[in-house]
Amino acid sequence: MKIGIIGATGYGGLELIRFLHNHPEVEKIELFTSSDEGAIFSSRFGHLIAIHDDPLKKIDVDSFASLDVIFTSTPSGVTSKLLPSLVGLGPKLIDLSGDYRLKEPKKYEEWYKKEPAPLNLLAESVYGLTEWNEYNIKNAQIIANPGCYPTAVLLSVLPLIKNRLIESNSLIIDAKSGISGAGNKPSQGTHFSETNENFSIYKMNEHQHIPEIEQAINMFTDVNATVSFNTHLVPMTRGILSTAYATVLPGVTNTQLTESLEETYKNHPFVRIIKDTSSLGTNRVKGSNYCDILVKLDERTNRVTIVSVIDNLVKGAAGQAIQNMNVQFDLPQTLGLDVVPLFI
Amino acid sequence: MKIGIIGATGYGGLELIRFLHNHPEVEKIELFTSSDEGAIFSSRFGHLIAIHDDPLKKIDVDSFASLDVIFTSTPSGVTSKLLPSLVGLGPKLIDLSGDYRLKEPKKYEEWYKKEPAPLNLLAESVYGLTEWNEYNIKNAQIIANPGCYPTAVLLSVLPLIKNRLIESNSLIIDAKSGISGAGNKPSQGTHFSETNENFSIYKMNEHQHIPEIEQAINMFTDVNATVSFNTHLVPMTRGILSTAYATVLPGVTNTQLTESLEETYKNHPFVRIIKDTSSLGTNRVKGSNYCDILVKLDERTNRVTIVSVIDNLVKGAAGQAIQNMNVQFDLPQTLGLDVVPLFI
Amino acid sequence: MKIGIIGATGYGGLELIRFLHNHPEVEKIELFTSSDEGAIFSSRFGHLIAIHDDPLKKIDVDSFASLDVIFTSTPSGVTSKLLPSLVGLGPKLIDLSGDYRLKEPKKYEEWYKKEPAPLNLLAESVYGLTEWNEYNIKNAQIIANPGCYPTAVLLSVLPLIKNRLIESNSLIIDAKSGISGAGNKPSQGTHFSETNENFSIYKMNEHQHIPEIEQAINMFTDVNATVSFNTHLVPMTRGILSTAYATVLPGVTNTQLTESLEETYKNHPFVRIIKDTSSLGTNRVKGSNYCDILVKLDERTNRVTIVSVIDNLVKGAAGQAIQNMNVQFDLPQTLGLDVVPLFI
Amino acid sequence: MKIGIIGATGYGGLELIRFLHNHPEVEKIELFTSSDEGAIFSSRFGHLIAIHDDPLKKIDVDSFASLDVIFTSTPSGVTSKLLPSLVGLGPKLIDLSGDYRLKEPKKYEEWYKKEPAPLNLLAESVYGLTEWNEYNIKNAQIIANPGCYPTAVLLSVLPLIKNRLIESNSLIIDAKSGISGAGNKPSQGTHFSETNENFSIYKMNEHQHIPEIEQAINMFTDVNATVSFNTHLVPMTRGILSTAYATVLPGVTNTQLTESLEETYKNHPFVRIIKDTSSLGTNRVKGSNYCDILVKLDERTNRVTIVSVIDNLVKGAAGQAIQNMNVQFDLPQTLGLDVVPLFI
Repeated sequence: MKIGIIGATGYGGLELIRFLHNHPEVEKIELFTSSDEGAIFSSRFGHLIAIHDDPLKKIDVDSFASLDVIFTSTPSGVTSKLLPSLVGLGPKLIDLSGDYRLKEPKKYEEWYKKEPAPLNLLAESVYGLTEWNEYNIKNAQIIANPGCYPTAVLLSVLPLIKNRLIESNSLIIDAKSGISGAGNKPSQGTHFSETNENFSIYKMNEHQHIPEIEQAINMFTDVNATVSFNTHLVPMTRGILSTAYATVLPGVTNTQLTESLEETYKNHPFVRIIKDTSSLGTNRVKGSNYCDILVKLDERTNRVTIVSVIDNLVKGAAGQAIQNMNVQFDLPQTLGLDVVPLFI
Repeated sequence: MKIGIIGATGYGGLELIRFLHNHPEVEKIELFTSSDEGAIFSSRFGHLIAIHDDPLKKIDVDSFASLDVIFTSTPSGVTSKLLPSLVGLGPKLIDLSGDYRLKEPKKYEEWYKKEPAPLNLLAESVYGLTEWNEYNIKNAQIIANPGCYPTAVLLSVLPLIKNRLIESNSLIIDAKSGISGAGNKPSQGTHFSETNENFSIYKMNEHQHIPEIEQAINMFTDVNATVSFNTHLVPMTRGILSTAYATVLPGVTNTQLTESLEETYKNHPFVRIIKDTSSLGTNRVKGSNYCDILVKLDERTNRVTIVSVIDNLVKGAAGQAIQNMNVQFDLPQTLGLDVVPLFI
Repeated sequence: MKIGIIGATGYGGLELIRFLHNHPEVEKIELFTSSDEGAIFSSRFGHLIAIHDDPLKKIDVDSFASLDVIFTSTPSGVTSKLLPSLVGLGPKLIDLSGDYRLKEPKKYEEWYKKEPAPLNLLAESVYGLTEWNEYNIKNAQIIANPGCYPTAVLLSVLPLIKNRLIESNSLIIDAKSGISGAGNKPSQGTHFSETNENFSIYKMNEHQHIPEIEQAINMFTDVNATVSFNTHLVPMTRGILSTAYATVLPGVTNTQLTESLEETYKNHPFVRIIKDTSSLGTNRVKGSNYCDILVKLDERTNRVTIVSVIDNLVKGAAGQAIQNMNVQFDLPQTLGLDVVPLFI
Repeated sequence: MKIGIIGATGYGGLELIRFLHNHPEVEKIELFTSSDEGAIFSSRFGHLIAIHDDPLKKIDVDSFASLDVIFTSTPSGVTSKLLPSLVGLGPKLIDLSGDYRLKEPKKYEEWYKKEPAPLNLLAESVYGLTEWNEYNIKNAQIIANPGCYPTAVLLSVLPLIKNRLIESNSLIIDAKSGISGAGNKPSQGTHFSETNENFSIYKMNEHQHIPEIEQAINMFTDVNATVSFNTHLVPMTRGILSTAYATVLPGVTNTQLTESLEETYKNHPFVRIIKDTSSLGTNRVKGSNYCDILVKLDERTNRVTIVSVIDNLVKGAAGQAIQNMNVQFDLPQTLGLDVVPLFI
């Protein structure tokens, strides 16, 4: 397979390169840029010296036909304009940005404050939450790869909503992310001295992943839910931990909650149901495509605590994108992704 | 004033020394130990070389009469047995452990899995949440200094409960702490390589600060509330951020919520009401006795998000203990505590 | 005393505010800006809410006469042009930038690649290494406050050179700094995700503090030395540790080396001679004005290892600046600076 | 191939599992323990859930014959006693501890303060610095895998010594390591709150890697050198950066120094010669088997600065061990090790 990456300088792009480098079906990776044509990629990213020393290529629609897949890993507002010119050229399009996730253009405008993608492409694009949408992904031309937070949240709460174990409107999600989620562009908010040794909340009740979560709940469970969702910055590079709270429906037991998750994911190699709190943490999935989930019913309050962890750059971005590519090309989902988490 | 500290080797104890060193009314600090008599304190804690090079003294009830205050900063289960022998000797007793916080011995046994303190001393001890209990603190012989999490939580939610702005049973508190909260004893769970770059949840729904929070809500607002409360470890040393969610009562506005806080704390120098999310973070209070609070109503869900930050070792331990001492001795609350947060 | 700070938004400026806030002789602090007139300082720096909410003032030479001291904490290349207009107005001038440290304009041009300050002011300015230049500091109108690295290096090596215990030309200095040394301006090199969990070397053999170190060795010991000096970035915010290596002169013992340091600094409260490696580390001086020094002779190689630590923002910047101010105003050197290091 | 690991609970052992999991020639990995027979490995190390859930096996000499390789990743002082019983059983023995590195038992006793391994096995063991000892490694029964520091140091300085470009006795090595180098056993010195935000020096002039470095210099270059060597702890998990200083021999140029390295390693895929300081840092090799080297001549002092970085757990331990295994089995050196560094 021949792969193109647009937006390789972002951290999602770097992780695509890291995993595709070891993917047995990938024979070539080409990096495209809108602005830095000719730049030697490894000059900016020293870790790629002797691994990817090619110059960046100019985005050129004519040359794309020979590719099998194009990953677009760009800031929001780029692929809404770029993808229309790529559709139909041949390669599958896997978009890691938020531009094709929300089906309703108005929602996109409201939460992203940008012009939405064309309606026909929004309709055609398939939401790439692999474990929940495999059939549609297989046949998709455009995949809207899920956001990092929605991936962690949805994988953990969807089984409980779908199996009618929790009151969906009681759902409160308190999410925490490492700072790589803010991307590679320096700012005061990602400046080491002001970020290190600091834990903070941001975009209170206003994160653009809220409509994505609510849309997916509806898409996969037919339930309309309005959720509380907040996001925090953890002074570490990688990892998301989502803590969700929901009131259980009458009579629901802890065993039912756990079994619901186990049953849902029994054939899904990247989702692990954890029994012991001490085995759960973002470093247990670091560098890997795993999503670990733990649920625990609090009988004092009749609420279940639903905890999940992912590596935001892997299962939350590049890893899931490659997992979707594997599905599209009828390859085992784990191909190129079967790595042991780093832990330390 | 002459001060004794029992348990100085803990991080709370070190912070007591740090602040008392600059307290204008403190003339002498003596450190007591049950096991290390004669050890030079600065040999273990190099930062105190040339500052506190005295040997540790043996705990000796006879010599305590000349002290004005004894701070006990020991693990739970120590002062329940030690304090009975100190009561009535003369010095005020300020206990930083959890042994005198819960008024019901059964609750202590249930959550701490240890033998409770004598009932008469539990009855006599005064809960040292300074901003809410000043009158009782002034006359107390034994002060039960609040836990770090309860301090951050209570200061932020009490005004809203007392003013009947939120449904108290809807309260869900998601708290996060730096690792110094785990104390100074090495363990796998505080080992650098496994803690660094890891965000995790612990004691799910089982933290011993739950009954303390519920008791204090009742004590200061006359409301019985059962709360959801979870705690997480942040890979940083100092700081607690508490994110609480509650359904607001019908008609309550964001302005009312903010004004409730402003009104409550207008004469309290260590509580700051923050308006802008970007001004909030644990590093904005680092090393200081401030508690910063921000509330925001989410009209989509009719829930208020209540965020507060403290330095767990200062306002969450040593700082508040000294603030209580100041109250007891009719000194300005800020004496010795009026420092600028470090930020970086 | 009335104090003015130009360049308060830098980290050195923030630390000046932190310490001056508790300085018993300081009655007023005014912050000046060249570009942000009227901005509320605490809006940018939330930790100063309720502490310093005044608007920034425009730099205005006329209003400076009523001040006792002006600290300039600006990037290099600013005070070379600004200070000529302030000289003679009345206030003492303490410059934390590098513009007045090198006596030879050519050296400044060579290492800083900028236009030097006027020759007469360079001649007049006094190098503010407090422990070594107290007499001149007392009478100075302009103080060139030392660089962070030179402070850590010079305090540790000067006694050994002055007492002719080491071969000065054998001196190799390997220095390491926390990232706050790079200032508060975001860049790729201070971006959290690329700085965290990374240790790197920078400005190899080219750091502008090299001529400052060599000039000070000559100034205080009459020895001409050419030193090797390299600098590294440590993934932490504060602190410098300097490891220096030098061949000892024939017959010199470890005892002589240690005694040389002890004798030199016996009346200097901010320099501590450390005996035990386990008591040495940047966190033992964090947030304080201490410089801790440890020397150890390696008999296998006949070289002494000279280690020193400081907080780069305190003894390496704001703390030493205030120490110099105290000297100028005949106050005890420790006034406002006598704080216990944070350690954790 | 069937692989046994003794001492899998150490961080070196975990990294062996991580890489062997993706090694195309490895069919089975068995973990052995002296004390925890039957324990489920993934219960202690949650990141291995669903990856390695087997129970630990008892060390049993009889069952070892069916294995192809046994890696021993134990603290020093264990394999000195254990290996004699394993020699001749069949499997190749690759020892990651320090017990078989020093050829002279007296040196081992002097620096390790422990009883040395049997003399005949010390004589037989081969020092596994892959790039310098390939021929001997190929035929070795026992491989003494190099220490983490010596790997970083030797790869960078050996070419310059061998090609007689530097004065070997002028060599001063200032090394810095992430905290994972201290192993997985909790202690005050690895306790998060006291290690985080701290940079410190340890084992001043006394590190047990000193005789290993000097022995290897002699072994590979026939030069006797006595080196200065110091080690520091960096508040990060992985990575070593070594900064070495040496006087160049008369007339030696920067070009010669760089070319010496390029020539030495032109056929060695894991050593990269770096030209630009900004491309060098421990995160550029994180998680990978690369060693990056940069040299720069300082004409002011006539000294060359030699900088190298490795991941201490990979090229400094498990990675190099597998590289040696590949050599022994006539496999490409990169098999199972050809991964892209994580960078972030």
